Amino acid sequence: MTTVRNLLEAKPSATNYSVASTDTVLQAVKIMVDAHIGAVLVKENEKIIGIYTERDYLRKGEYEGRSAKDTLIKDVMVRKMITVGYDTSLEQCMALMRQYNIRHLPVVEDDHLVGLVSMRDVMAAVLDDKDIEIRGLENYIMGSGFQS
Amino acid sequence: MTTVRNLLEAKPSATNYSVASTDTVLQAVKIMVDAHIGAVLVKENEKIIGIYTERDYLRKGEYEGRSAKDTLIKDVMVRKMITVGYDTSLEQCMALMRQYNIRHLPVVEDDHLVGLVSMRDVMAAVLDDKDIEIRGLENYIMGSGFQS
Repeated sequence: MTTVRNLLEAKPSATNYSVASTDTVLQAVKIMVDAHIGAVLVKENEKIIGIYTERDYLRKGEYEGRSAKDTLIKDVMVRKMITVGYDTSLEQCMALMRQYNIRHLPVVEDDHLVGLVSMRDVMAAVLDDKDIEIRGLENYIMGSGFQS
Repeated sequence: MTTVRNLLEAKPSATNYSVASTDTVLQAVKIMVDAHIGAVLVKENEKIIGIYTERDYLRKGEYEGRSAKDTLIKDVMVRKMITVGYDTSLEQCMALMRQYNIRHLPVVEDDHLVGLVSMRDVMAAVLDDKDIEIRGLENYIMGSGFQS
């Protein structure tokens, strides 16, 4: 069973971008645009306390009358994060993403953030898994002289 | 092989939201937030001429000094759309989404827009397909007295 651990190992160079809770939304947007990502984690006293995504920017920005340069991340971030651990399976990740309609899951181990997985990461890996499973079953059928 | 046609048939009630090219970004954002969607199509003289997504809002909004209420959609939309047809397979959709790093594919038949599929739609359907395929292979093994 593929887990979050395997997923993180597959992209060892990935940086987990974060902003301070007192940064402005404009600073967070700049990081997301420049790094081509859709979410940043929010830190306060070196602890991760929330997440801010492009969906939050859409919903809680100009739509609600806020300007990015005058809004602090702590006022629009999502504090209640759905997190996973190293041993969470990819299927569990997908179920969480579907259930909560979210695209990013912070990975936490021993109270420390160790990664961030996106829907794109998880689904691509699950698809690869399923292909391997299908090839395995096909080989099982072929290799056992099933056609004789 | 599952195609875009099957995918659209599975969600017959889905509305394809659109804005006019002369609408403001704020109007488009309002539609996306209220409908819980991440993209709208852009119409001009009843013809679809582009697409505007929450990623465009992130990249070409306040980040580039534009305000949503003073910016027209035609100035920030994406005109070069990657489209698919009824008979495009889900795997082809995924490949296009990966290649162009996009999450939405308009479906065009005979020069008419007939739908819009998202990465979420496509990947969920592909996963269902793979599960069916795996169950089929398992049944094939079981049903043929393979264990005797």
